[in-house]
Amino acid sequence: MMEFSIQRDYFITQLNDTLKAISPRTTLPILTGIKIDAKNEGIVLTGSDSEISIEITIPNQVDGEEIVNVTEPGSVVLPGRFFVDIIKKLPGREVKLSTNEQFQTLITSGHSEFNLSGLDPDQYPLLPQVSSEDALQLPVKVLKNVIAQTNFAVSTSETRPVLTGVNWLIQENELICTATDSHRLAVRKLKLEDEEIGDKNVIIPGKALAELNKIMTESEEHIDIFFASNQVLFRVGNVNFISRLLEGHYPDTSRLFPENYEIKLALDNSDFYHAIDRASLLAREGGNNVIKLSAGDEQVELSSTSPEIGTVKEEVTANEVEGGNLKISFNSKYMMDALKAIDNDEVEVEFFGTMKPFILKPKDDDTVTQLILPIRTY
Amino acid sequence: MMEFSIQRDYFITQLNDTLKAISPRTTLPILTGIKIDAKNEGIVLTGSDSEISIEITIPNQVDGEEIVNVTEPGSVVLPGRFFVDIIKKLPGREVKLSTNEQFQTLITSGHSEFNLSGLDPDQYPLLPQVSSEDALQLPVKVLKNVIAQTNFAVSTSETRPVLTGVNWLIQENELICTATDSHRLAVRKLKLEDEEIGDKNVIIPGKALAELNKIMTESEEHIDIFFASNQVLFRVGNVNFISRLLEGHYPDTSRLFPENYEIKLALDNSDFYHAIDRASLLAREGGNNVIKLSAGDEQVELSSTSPEIGTVKEEVTANEVEGGNLKISFNSKYMMDALKAIDNDEVEVEFFGTMKPFILKPKDDDTVTQLILPIRTY
Repeated sequence: MMEFSIQRDYFITQLNDTLKAISPRTTLPILTGIKIDAKNEGIVLTGSDSEISIEITIPNQVDGEEIVNVTEPGSVVLPGRFFVDIIKKLPGREVKLSTNEQFQTLITSGHSEFNLSGLDPDQYPLLPQVSSEDALQLPVKVLKNVIAQTNFAVSTSETRPVLTGVNWLIQENELICTATDSHRLAVRKLKLEDEEIGDKNVIIPGKALAELNKIMTESEEHIDIFFASNQVLFRVGNVNFISRLLEGHYPDTSRLFPENYEIKLALDNSDFYHAIDRASLLAREGGNNVIKLSAGDEQVELSSTSPEIGTVKEEVTANEVEGGNLKISFNSKYMMDALKAIDNDEVEVEFFGTMKPFILKPKDDDTVTQLILPIRTY
Repeated sequence: MMEFSIQRDYFITQLNDTLKAISPRTTLPILTGIKIDAKNEGIVLTGSDSEISIEITIPNQVDGEEIVNVTEPGSVVLPGRFFVDIIKKLPGREVKLSTNEQFQTLITSGHSEFNLSGLDPDQYPLLPQVSSEDALQLPVKVLKNVIAQTNFAVSTSETRPVLTGVNWLIQENELICTATDSHRLAVRKLKLEDEEIGDKNVIIPGKALAELNKIMTESEEHIDIFFASNQVLFRVGNVNFISRLLEGHYPDTSRLFPENYEIKLALDNSDFYHAIDRASLLAREGGNNVIKLSAGDEQVELSSTSPEIGTVKEEVTANEVEGGNLKISFNSKYMMDALKAIDNDEVEVEFFGTMKPFILKPKDDDTVTQLILPIRTY
């Protein structure tokens, strides 16, 4: 037994966010549903795919306007995507839900009346409890940035499960985020100046961070992050986003960084990116995305060949050059991902030899480092 | 041997339109290419999938601005999608093409240089020649409307190939367009008041009309249509769009229309559409899209059931009702397609019995008629 009415527009926004945790492919059928808890203080929506869970609280009032009116508290689980589609298409400004003892749910709005078979909320798995102590608070804008600069580099292969996540290392009031798929590596460092947080070393699944990124809107300024032994809770506004952590040890990546570059270039990020983008049209067709780079003076030459289609040659003018000549080949996709992650108009590239990984950084900035392994064509 | 330079932005627009005729799945490999003819008067681009062909003329000047500069006339066939991707990504405002005797084509713009393997234009199939006599001229807006109101009803099955096209019948200065997939039928009539055109009876492939619709922009006012024995040419602005006609006899559909309705309703098009749209959420889930309608007084009731999910009931208030009670079932998709095709705020629906086809028309307008066969559930 449950009964409430709610503003439809507001409900739709929150339902869409809840839906982001729900996967149509789930081993536990009840997880295709959205759990609705109507309480005297408002409504709580829950969606989960057992890896990540989203819990959204809709208060009775928002900015002085009544959003929800609960006339009888209670709970039900309704078929997720389906229920959201119905709410989206209803005709009225308001929608009313009422549930009987068999969890049959009557949804009315205007001259429209749906009667849905709901499920028993007691069958819905309990969300993990994460203690609200030992929180890390970050500006939403910064966290979005940290995710954008590392998450693309996680592995999509389950061969080494730890590499499908991003390593978050907190020590000496610095957060170091590392992602690698063993062909390239992304590191983002962030000073936690005003924070009093204990040391941490966790691996957050890349998929969870991608979903979190979609949910965080910049209408909220800050996000609170709470760590438990095998879970992490992100709290932003009225949303609780919970992800399990990946088990295992993240590899030590510090030994991957070579020393003493042979040649260092400073390039316009956008010019370099677009030249590679064009060259990759042919590199893609060749099947392996290989682009050759030849540097030595201001004119950096990029080239690629597809035996069937033809050849391409691009020239980019470097702003600064230090060191000798070099020829190297790389995967165009990795290079473009790295350049996108470098949030700066000018990028520095350090090459250590044809066979050695090379490094990209924003000019005069050590917070972001991208490392890419070359392809051996020479 | 061919050489010209061209404004890139303008080139991209015309290439995108040419590409619409090209299918990646073709039995004749050269048809994955775009044929480029550089003449003293400008450039002609040709794309074809052998069913439809698009021929676009780019003049040397547009509105007094130089677009093309041909320094050496000639022809080449370049890999279609690929060539267009390159032109889109080039850095400069202008792009230069030059071809050698082996049809190797050098494409340069800014510091970017592509060398593509082209094909011999003599291997490209000749376009059918359509005589420019006996033309039908229509406003572009009207033709777009005619297509939108009929084309959706063509059959997607090749069982009866003639039904994959729209029958265009011209007689006594009236154009009658008919499409049916044997479950529903759409008819659009158009008086050709100022036209002096002979009688015609042709079947134009639905896919061709759909592509034509995408290419016709309302920046052009009129389109000229020329009929040959097995081809039709649509000429709009600088574009020639040629489609083959379907062979065979189109069935006589006039005997499908029942007479003497049992009940006639006048309904608000949008209200009716949205009620069916909602009911179809459950109808879809049931697998067969069945919606039941029950009419007799002003309150028209729509309902649908999915055994797994639940039930829906919608009420729509009719503006006018003539006749007795009726219950009928229909496919929600066909009904929604028909209502979308009725370009009027108010729709008239005539029912002739539970087992008989029913008819939808714009209120007080006979130019559009939609006929739908019911589903037998009663």
